[in-house]
Amino acid sequence: MLFKQVGKKNSEDIPGIGQYEDFHTIDWQRDIARDRMRHRYIVKRKQNSILDTIKGAHDAWSGWLCVLLVGLVTGTVAGIIDIGSSWMSDLKFGICPEAFWLNMEQCCWSSNETSFGGEKGNCSQWRMWSEVLGSSRSGIWAYIVSYVFFIIFALSFASLAAGLVRIFAPYACGSGVPEIKTILSGFIIRGYLGKWTLIIKSIGIMLAVSAGLSLGKEGPMVHIACCIGNILSYLFPKYGRNEAKKREILSAAAAAGVSVAFGAPIGGVLFSLEEVSYYFPLKTLWRSFFCALVAAFLLRSINPFGNEHSVLYYVEYNKPWNFFELIPFVGLGIIGGVIATIFIKSNVYWCRVRKTTKLGQYPVMEVLVITAITAVFSFPNPYTRMSSSQLIYLLFSQCGVSSSDGLCDYVYVNNMTAFKTATSAEAGPGVYRAIWLLILALAFKLVTTIFTFGIKIPCGLFIPSLCLGSITGRIVGIGMQQLAFRYPHLWLFNGECDSSDDCITPGLYAMVGAAAVLGGITRMTVSLVVIMFELTGGVRYIVPLMAAAMASKWVGDALGKQGIYDAHIDLNGYPFLDSKEEFSDTGLAADVMQPKRGESLNVLTQDSMTIYEIEALMKNTEHNGFPVVVSQESQYLVGFVLRRDLMLAIANVKRNHDGYDGNSLVTFTVNPPQLPPHSSPPLKLKKILDMAPITITDQTPMETVIDMFRKLGLRQTLVTHNGRLLGVITKKDVLRYIKQLGNEDPNSILFN
Amino acid sequence: MLFKQVGKKNSEDIPGIGQYEDFHTIDWQRDIARDRMRHRYIVKRKQNSILDTIKGAHDAWSGWLCVLLVGLVTGTVAGIIDIGSSWMSDLKFGICPEAFWLNMEQCCWSSNETSFGGEKGNCSQWRMWSEVLGSSRSGIWAYIVSYVFFIIFALSFASLAAGLVRIFAPYACGSGVPEIKTILSGFIIRGYLGKWTLIIKSIGIMLAVSAGLSLGKEGPMVHIACCIGNILSYLFPKYGRNEAKKREILSAAAAAGVSVAFGAPIGGVLFSLEEVSYYFPLKTLWRSFFCALVAAFLLRSINPFGNEHSVLYYVEYNKPWNFFELIPFVGLGIIGGVIATIFIKSNVYWCRVRKTTKLGQYPVMEVLVITAITAVFSFPNPYTRMSSSQLIYLLFSQCGVSSSDGLCDYVYVNNMTAFKTATSAEAGPGVYRAIWLLILALAFKLVTTIFTFGIKIPCGLFIPSLCLGSITGRIVGIGMQQLAFRYPHLWLFNGECDSSDDCITPGLYAMVGAAAVLGGITRMTVSLVVIMFELTGGVRYIVPLMAAAMASKWVGDALGKQGIYDAHIDLNGYPFLDSKEEFSDTGLAADVMQPKRGESLNVLTQDSMTIYEIEALMKNTEHNGFPVVVSQESQYLVGFVLRRDLMLAIANVKRNHDGYDGNSLVTFTVNPPQLPPHSSPPLKLKKILDMAPITITDQTPMETVIDMFRKLGLRQTLVTHNGRLLGVITKKDVLRYIKQLGNEDPNSILFN
Repeated sequence: MLFKQVGKKNSEDIPGIGQYEDFHTIDWQRDIARDRMRHRYIVKRKQNSILDTIKGAHDAWSGWLCVLLVGLVTGTVAGIIDIGSSWMSDLKFGICPEAFWLNMEQCCWSSNETSFGGEKGNCSQWRMWSEVLGSSRSGIWAYIVSYVFFIIFALSFASLAAGLVRIFAPYACGSGVPEIKTILSGFIIRGYLGKWTLIIKSIGIMLAVSAGLSLGKEGPMVHIACCIGNILSYLFPKYGRNEAKKREILSAAAAAGVSVAFGAPIGGVLFSLEEVSYYFPLKTLWRSFFCALVAAFLLRSINPFGNEHSVLYYVEYNKPWNFFELIPFVGLGIIGGVIATIFIKSNVYWCRVRKTTKLGQYPVMEVLVITAITAVFSFPNPYTRMSSSQLIYLLFSQCGVSSSDGLCDYVYVNNMTAFKTATSAEAGPGVYRAIWLLILALAFKLVTTIFTFGIKIPCGLFIPSLCLGSITGRIVGIGMQQLAFRYPHLWLFNGECDSSDDCITPGLYAMVGAAAVLGGITRMTVSLVVIMFELTGGVRYIVPLMAAAMASKWVGDALGKQGIYDAHIDLNGYPFLDSKEEFSDTGLAADVMQPKRGESLNVLTQDSMTIYEIEALMKNTEHNGFPVVVSQESQYLVGFVLRRDLMLAIANVKRNHDGYDGNSLVTFTVNPPQLPPHSSPPLKLKKILDMAPITITDQTPMETVIDMFRKLGLRQTLVTHNGRLLGVITKKDVLRYIKQLGNEDPNSILFN
Repeated sequence: MLFKQVGKKNSEDIPGIGQYEDFHTIDWQRDIARDRMRHRYIVKRKQNSILDTIKGAHDAWSGWLCVLLVGLVTGTVAGIIDIGSSWMSDLKFGICPEAFWLNMEQCCWSSNETSFGGEKGNCSQWRMWSEVLGSSRSGIWAYIVSYVFFIIFALSFASLAAGLVRIFAPYACGSGVPEIKTILSGFIIRGYLGKWTLIIKSIGIMLAVSAGLSLGKEGPMVHIACCIGNILSYLFPKYGRNEAKKREILSAAAAAGVSVAFGAPIGGVLFSLEEVSYYFPLKTLWRSFFCALVAAFLLRSINPFGNEHSVLYYVEYNKPWNFFELIPFVGLGIIGGVIATIFIKSNVYWCRVRKTTKLGQYPVMEVLVITAITAVFSFPNPYTRMSSSQLIYLLFSQCGVSSSDGLCDYVYVNNMTAFKTATSAEAGPGVYRAIWLLILALAFKLVTTIFTFGIKIPCGLFIPSLCLGSITGRIVGIGMQQLAFRYPHLWLFNGECDSSDDCITPGLYAMVGAAAVLGGITRMTVSLVVIMFELTGGVRYIVPLMAAAMASKWVGDALGKQGIYDAHIDLNGYPFLDSKEEFSDTGLAADVMQPKRGESLNVLTQDSMTIYEIEALMKNTEHNGFPVVVSQESQYLVGFVLRRDLMLAIANVKRNHDGYDGNSLVTFTVNPPQLPPHSSPPLKLKKILDMAPITITDQTPMETVIDMFRKLGLRQTLVTHNGRLLGVITKKDVLRYIKQLGNEDPNSILFN
């Protein structure tokens, strides 16, 4: 067919055609059409020779092969990061003199003492810094030495991370999820998923986590996985050289990133589907699942934490929850939504301050100040001294017989400690002390996280959010438990707490609270519930988790429209066309299109403009493309030509072909008009003309237009009335229009 | 804005505008635009009075309220069906004389004897029919009595089901999933989701399952849930009166259906997303999850089976699988794919025979013959005599100490029966006998299922598929186990079976085999794995399940393109535009559009046709709509008007308004042309004109056109060249074109 041949020529004739410039929007339809053309070409040639058959088979399998590789590499990198960050985190406290490369837990394995849980550094193989310096393990001197080492290590890790990011890969900072959402929605940010970003982000996140800052490695893991996906996609030209197809691999990589971060393959796929991906065909679903599973399986084989559980925060309790508990769970959801809104608003405010004031010019200094403050204030409180991940584990778990933490200091009524779990007993002084410390930790974590998220080192939000939520939840849980202990016959308990059996599990409240805050901050829904349930293995608790996540999302939506990722996309002015928004009132295409009434439209005519005229037009305008019409008078639409293609074609002609000069006519038709004799031959550019531009009429409601932009992945659409061209609507126009509807500044949309 | 007012008038002025006829395709864009208009109207009025505020709030919440109701009702109906079918299934074997409404298991609860597992009717409270008739429990006479009762009950249940379906609700037959896929893709089948279908399908599936036919109640449960969704949506005009919005509720209902069928809420949502839904915005994802969870939660509260496990086929083993086992798992996947292909091809062949020959005229007779054959041949074999669900449970489970089934007849080398599980021992004669019986059962089930799926009673495919797969898997598993027992040092086992510990779990093979066959038949992927894992609680076995599902899908795709549901959609000629297909070669819109070269296009002009002319045009053609152009000569496109709207408008004018006659001009413009004096006033129909039809150029590749039809949910698109109208492409044209590409008969597409 004609179109195909044109397509083939198109990409072979003139180098560079079909690529995009930095910070530009991609044209999904065109890229997918290009891929189909390529695919048909290969299928056609498949019968020709054995080599072509192999090529065909390779092409058919390359998608699977690519995601397999992405999964394997992601799992490996995640394993390295896990091992590295756990070793460096422990380095703040001490060292294993016999084998310095072991972390505390591994160091203690050789001895028979157990050291997991709240109590750290209990075994004799492991030396605290105070011991290394010849002092004792406890006492005021040891405390001071530990404190100083803690701060020194934190500062050096943080400064190293900040320095690496500043020097080698500025894109490696932050969580990366907002940018990945934007990239997946069809936007080009060169180098954002490059190898330097990958290397620096991997090292940086280890350092940042080890520095004890209030951040997590889960968001960055998604970014790292996407870098791996991007780099590996270049091994397969089908994906590497086609931006739309590449995004299928990136969607799968994002799923693998979440999968290794939480050990949650299904949650990862749903996260990719719900939160980050834009164009998610069913084929991608299946490949993403495969990729996520391979990555999780490999990571589990590496077993970086050396424990047996297949899930990260395995909860060992399996008690059914009571129906009345839905009330406190929904309450937790509401609290979670409020905390999340406070966090999002404050963080966005602070990020805006950083962007607009002088503060933004001293990123390394900012990192150091925040690290110093975090380290100084977190050491005295045992709940902030331990890593966030350990704190979450502690708060999620049930008090057992052997628990020695203050949280489990219960007074047993009839001294049956060995037979009873702690939940049915009265709280002792240790519990009250723990609650006060937890409240301090909550306030501290909330404030530091607000200032931390956005500084120029890799930092994710999942773990801090879970941490905030689990503290809140545990406090509420202990409150409920004591209420049930003291007034078991309250109407609230509906008779279910009458017996002396424990009826409230504070650990479950921590879990629910964690889901609530994370849900409020990210506005994830199904994927959140699935991740929580894969994370803890608590199949029974889907309903409580969902109740809390729902309440939190609704409260969050009521108090402030956006989740943190969308807020940061807005902050940075990325051209992201959200598919979730709904509008209360909209106009017609005629009101939004360029040019506005009174201005004139810049068009090319199909066979009456010279090279000079076209060059002048390109010089005077900055449009990314021009409609081609029959003639200036009639304005009937013929097609659309991209600025970039036009420039390349004219440059190519000037370079290679004689006989053309500035007065040569440019034609976009098959049959050029009769020219006067002795004039130079017309330059035929039909091959770069898109004869099938998407058009709409001027009476089309903007909602339909927005829908078409979203679903078809358009870059622009042409507006006609009774067949005559009236104007153009670009993605930028649409985004500006949406901003205007929301009473926001339309000029915050920076890119096209 | 003008458009909105027109819209309001539109739906008020002339009754019936905006509805669809039976067996017609819906226009998603138009319906969604209508809903947005309605929404804006409510939002605008919200401030006016308290009543309007309440109306606004009701409108905002009605989606959630509706899915809540759907979930509750679906859970209740599923509970009733479960209780009813389990009671009637047991009625075939005997009765509980003290309380006839109890099934065997419940009847035996009062005694201390346990009766679950392979052995049936072991307790003394429960009377077998032979006992009721005064004979003994065993012996040849008892066998004959049981056999006769078994057949009589089966025949009466089946004939009752077939009769009910034939008399009250012909649409209640079959699984319903292909039709629901079609309906969700935007097609109207009146009465398919009505109250009669709901009632008859609910009763019919109980009877059909109890009759012991080779069918399951899972597919019908999806249909039943969708009926509930459809009926309840009429309580909320937002959904009931808007076909596009209603499909959001139906998607959620489908998820709830799978959720109650398997106790798998997450799997249900993914099934709805992957398999049945077409248009699945994120809002729907979240609501579907809520709906599925409510339904599953309610069903669990009803607890129809009276057991404690929260999952249907709970597997009590939790052993890790060995890496080398991936080889037999993939092998099982391949076998599963082959079995699935045999099934699909034979079933579709038989269904085509039924449709085209006289056989189709005797549906009740067919049901009776199949029931009689099934009953006669299934009774002698214990594995076919028990219900499929029990057989699956038996095959999935591990041989324990107390297992008395032949499958667990192992010879223990050192007589340590009490301490060893059966897997490390040599198979005894009982096992070999069981294998032969299972092979017979496999052949029997495969053949009966081929003939059963498609008869005119409610029948699902999930349970028979799982059953076929689990038999295959168990046989392969026992084979592997004996191989490992006899040659533990084989290279295949990689040293992992050296110790005397059991290294092969045959129950796991049954599970994997079940996933493989089900995957091959339905071509589900992620949802299959999630359902299997929710069904069995085997979190550890995601990787084996996925390996088998993948192998099976690939084998299935290689041997025969379609899954059973798509094959049945094809068989019935439903207009379903599959979003998964890819094409090896495509043409341009110009090749596909109507009219073909040489024919003339039927258009209306904007201001030069009389009522007579329009009526004549409508009489001579059967198109569902007509493009409106500036004039017959220029053919510049103005808009599109639906046949139905035009007929209603003209009928309305004739009925209500004087002054118009057949010679009155019809205009679609704001400014009608100057008319000669004394002529009748022009009939202004601008309000029924769609001024924003979707248009494409004649050079648009068909792939892009198909993409637009899929993603935007179009009914037709107009083809233009340089602004002039050339033709129309309808969904039917697209479907015929796709058939042609696949070398199939384009006339099999029946509907528009």
